Amino acid sequence: MSRRERVVEVMRAGQAALIEGFETADGEGRFIEHRWDRPGGGGGSARVLEGGRVFERAGVNLSVVHGDVVPDSLARQHPTAAGKPFFATGVSMVLHAVNPYVPAFHANFRYFETGTEDDPEALWWFGGGADLTPSYPFAEDAVAFHRTLEGLCSRHPEVADYATWKATCDRYFTVRHRGEMRGVGGIFFDEMSPPEGGDFDAELALVEDGLGSLLPSYLPIVERREGLPYGERERAWQLYRRGRYVEFNLVYDRGTLFGLQTQGNIEAILMSMPPLARWAFDHRPEPGSPEEAALAYFQPRDWAGAEAQALEPGHATTKGR
Amino acid sequence: MSRRERVVEVMRAGQAALIEGFETADGEGRFIEHRWDRPGGGGGSARVLEGGRVFERAGVNLSVVHGDVVPDSLARQHPTAAGKPFFATGVSMVLHAVNPYVPAFHANFRYFETGTEDDPEALWWFGGGADLTPSYPFAEDAVAFHRTLEGLCSRHPEVADYATWKATCDRYFTVRHRGEMRGVGGIFFDEMSPPEGGDFDAELALVEDGLGSLLPSYLPIVERREGLPYGERERAWQLYRRGRYVEFNLVYDRGTLFGLQTQGNIEAILMSMPPLARWAFDHRPEPGSPEEAALAYFQPRDWAGAEAQALEPGHATTKGR
Repeated sequence: MSRRERVVEVMRAGQAALIEGFETADGEGRFIEHRWDRPGGGGGSARVLEGGRVFERAGVNLSVVHGDVVPDSLARQHPTAAGKPFFATGVSMVLHAVNPYVPAFHANFRYFETGTEDDPEALWWFGGGADLTPSYPFAEDAVAFHRTLEGLCSRHPEVADYATWKATCDRYFTVRHRGEMRGVGGIFFDEMSPPEGGDFDAELALVEDGLGSLLPSYLPIVERREGLPYGERERAWQLYRRGRYVEFNLVYDRGTLFGLQTQGNIEAILMSMPPLARWAFDHRPEPGSPEEAALAYFQPRDWAGAEAQALEPGHATTKGR
Repeated sequence: MSRRERVVEVMRAGQAALIEGFETADGEGRFIEHRWDRPGGGGGSARVLEGGRVFERAGVNLSVVHGDVVPDSLARQHPTAAGKPFFATGVSMVLHAVNPYVPAFHANFRYFETGTEDDPEALWWFGGGADLTPSYPFAEDAVAFHRTLEGLCSRHPEVADYATWKATCDRYFTVRHRGEMRGVGGIFFDEMSPPEGGDFDAELALVEDGLGSLLPSYLPIVERREGLPYGERERAWQLYRRGRYVEFNLVYDRGTLFGLQTQGNIEAILMSMPPLARWAFDHRPEPGSPEEAALAYFQPRDWAGAEAQALEPGHATTKGR
């Protein structure tokens, strides 16, 4: 099998397992498949669950696209690839939950290759990441999430670097005009190794393990929080926080903007939008409220480290909310 | 009085009259004043009404700011102004109504001046516009709105050009990735005359008349539609359309992006966001539904012209919805 065939196999299997895991967690909602074609070549399968028991809106998109000429923005980054054909595939997902205590979750793994399949000078690289966006953050959840991702990285020391990827994620998922992170971060990497060369087998193994680590990183949190009672106040706060999610995705997210500018499949791109979001003028939580406490979480913090563990008892009181 | 003093006087009076007019139309809600300071010099008064009888969220912002050095993006457009101090003032407003049959409304008039007050080589220019964003458009409303603006322009033939400004508005307020306009347009102009010279008195007169034309352009529409009965279906459609409004403002609106990039007053900038917005995957109105009929309105059309009048009877059936 060629590299790209091997990657597609991993991505397809990953999407299927994720769909199954999320459907089981939801218990009621089902992912509907929307297939889409890319005018320039290839297409994808957007699988979307709306109005579930646990998930208000969830999407898991698989894309397998190709084209005759590398897009301009990539050609600028990789001049030797200019004018060459390209191939790209990836799985991306966004889940927005009903219960305000259940965080939103986003992850993707992607692969890009320039040149033809047998081009010895082909460039190729993997990118990816996973991050958690709670409205009411729990230290326990942030720690567990980061440690699962740290564990993933530690199983692939030759290609993965949790500390660097965590820092990249903190920087990337910052709503700059608000001076805050979108959530509590996770990991993010643009190019796992330089596109001129890397250990393909090792990198694909990380991606396969990464796809397999997503359910264990997120579903235990969903299970812990999905039954917590909430009212209008918590729902309103969730919708304000989703407003920030929208601000991040439409103003800063490179994948979203690249997709919109290049007239990609709009619905698959904007699958990340929350089902409902709220804005109000200068909305500030009351001093001493759980909502105010939440804001302290949206700054970089060493969640996987000993420091976060030491902080945990203090933050664990938020469980009682 | 200096030019800038005269403009500020017109802007202040305009804001006050607009507040009064919108409060009267709402009948219950009141605009709360939020004053803000600009770290680099000056500040503003954002007046915001939330949770009114007619308006779910409305904001009318007055800004009067100055700085030591013209911002980079403007210096690139006007190289002779680079390094000079600047002064800017403007009134901008966005109104989102409760009733899905009442359109959202946006307008602003702004003035920019470079150099000191007595600099004989100072550049100065006015910009502005007004546009209407219905969820359920009525031809009668679009025609009346455009004719009011055409009337404004026709009273100032030496500086105004309805046809050009209308076309600029159609182009500007396009959600490019959706291939549709945000609403039914209006007028928009970036620079009323070349910044190197213009007829200040005539331009200020247009702006004053423009500010005074906003209530007559919008409130009769509000009055016609605010009592129409609606249900969950119409509310849902309104929220989907507001999602498009958000997409436009965060992805394309130059004022919004400029404000966010330059760390302007975030709340005053994002006053334009709707109070609540919805997204769903590939939401398409049923064939033959009023929602599908609405989509036909979000393309450029000669609303003020004879052609639109000829179309009107056909579209007027939408009144019966």
